[in-house]
Amino acid sequence: MNVEFINPFITALVNVVGMMGHTELTSEKPQIKDNVVSMGDISGLIGMVGQKTKGSLSITFEKSLALRIMQRMLGEKKKQIDEDVIDMIGEITNMVSGGAKNDLSKKGYEFDMATPVIVSGSRHTIDHIHDGHVIIIPFSSDSGKAFIEICFD
Amino acid sequence: MNVEFINPFITALVNVVGMMGHTELTSEKPQIKDNVVSMGDISGLIGMVGQKTKGSLSITFEKSLALRIMQRMLGEKKKQIDEDVIDMIGEITNMVSGGAKNDLSKKGYEFDMATPVIVSGSRHTIDHIHDGHVIIIPFSSDSGKAFIEICFD
Repeated sequence: MNVEFINPFITALVNVVGMMGHTELTSEKPQIKDNVVSMGDISGLIGMVGQKTKGSLSITFEKSLALRIMQRMLGEKKKQIDEDVIDMIGEITNMVSGGAKNDLSKKGYEFDMATPVIVSGSRHTIDHIHDGHVIIIPFSSDSGKAFIEICFD
Repeated sequence: MNVEFINPFITALVNVVGMMGHTELTSEKPQIKDNVVSMGDISGLIGMVGQKTKGSLSITFEKSLALRIMQRMLGEKKKQIDEDVIDMIGEITNMVSGGAKNDLSKKGYEFDMATPVIVSGSRHTIDHIHDGHVIIIPFSSDSGKAFIEICFD
C-alpha cells in the first residue's frame, strides 16, 4: 500500500473533524501495524470492495475526544457515549470514507463501500483480518487520540 | 429483508460452530433490532457490497462461548481472549459469510464481501448505520450467547 492511497484518508479525517468538529487533529507518521495497538472507546468501521481488491477501514476515537467533538459540533456536553455520539461518529466515518473514495477515484482507484458499523465499548481493540499489511495512522489533539487503520488485500 | 435472505446466515453459523467448534447453537426468533441490545466481548464484522445494495454483518460472542469453542476446536483452554481466539473468530466470520454468500448466490442475491474486522473488548455494543432495518438473531448454547446482526440498505 503506497502513500498515494493512504493520504486521502488522513486528509479527509483532519478536514472533517476540523471543519465540523472544530478540533485540530495532528497526524503522526503512518506505520505498519505490528506490535502497535490502537485502543479506543468508539470506532467507526467500513468495509471496502473494489474490482481487484477488498479491504477495511477503521477510525477509533478515545472517549474524551469523541465527547469534545460532539460538544464543539452540536453544543451538547455529554458525559457518556450515547446514541447521539454514535450517530455523529457514523456521520464522520461516512464523510471520511466518502471523501477518500472521491479522491482515490480521481487517481484511478475505484471501490464501493459497505454500510458503516459503529462499535462502542470501553478500551476495545480492532484487528483487521487480511493477507497484506495493516497501516495505522495515529492522530493527536487537545482532547485525546484517534487512530485510522486501513488494510487492503 | 425477507426470511430467504436471513436463513443462510443462521444455517451457516450453526453449521460452522457445530462442526468446527463442537458446540450446538440454538437460534431464537429473528427480530427487528429496536430496543434490543446485543452485547458481547468479541465480534466479527464484515461489510457487504452488491450491485444494487450494501450492508453489514456482525457476529458477536460472549467471552465464555468464544473460549469454549476455542477449547473444543483446538484443545486449548484459554482464560482470556488473545490473538488465537481473535484469529478463530476471524475464521468463523469468514466461513459464515462465505457460506451464506454461496447460498444466496444460488437464490440470485449477489454481493461481494470486504475483509473481516474483529473487535475485542469487554461488553461492547454494535450499531449498524443504515437506512433500512437491522435484523438481530440471538443464539443460545451451553456456554453463553451469540448474536448475528444483519443490515441491508
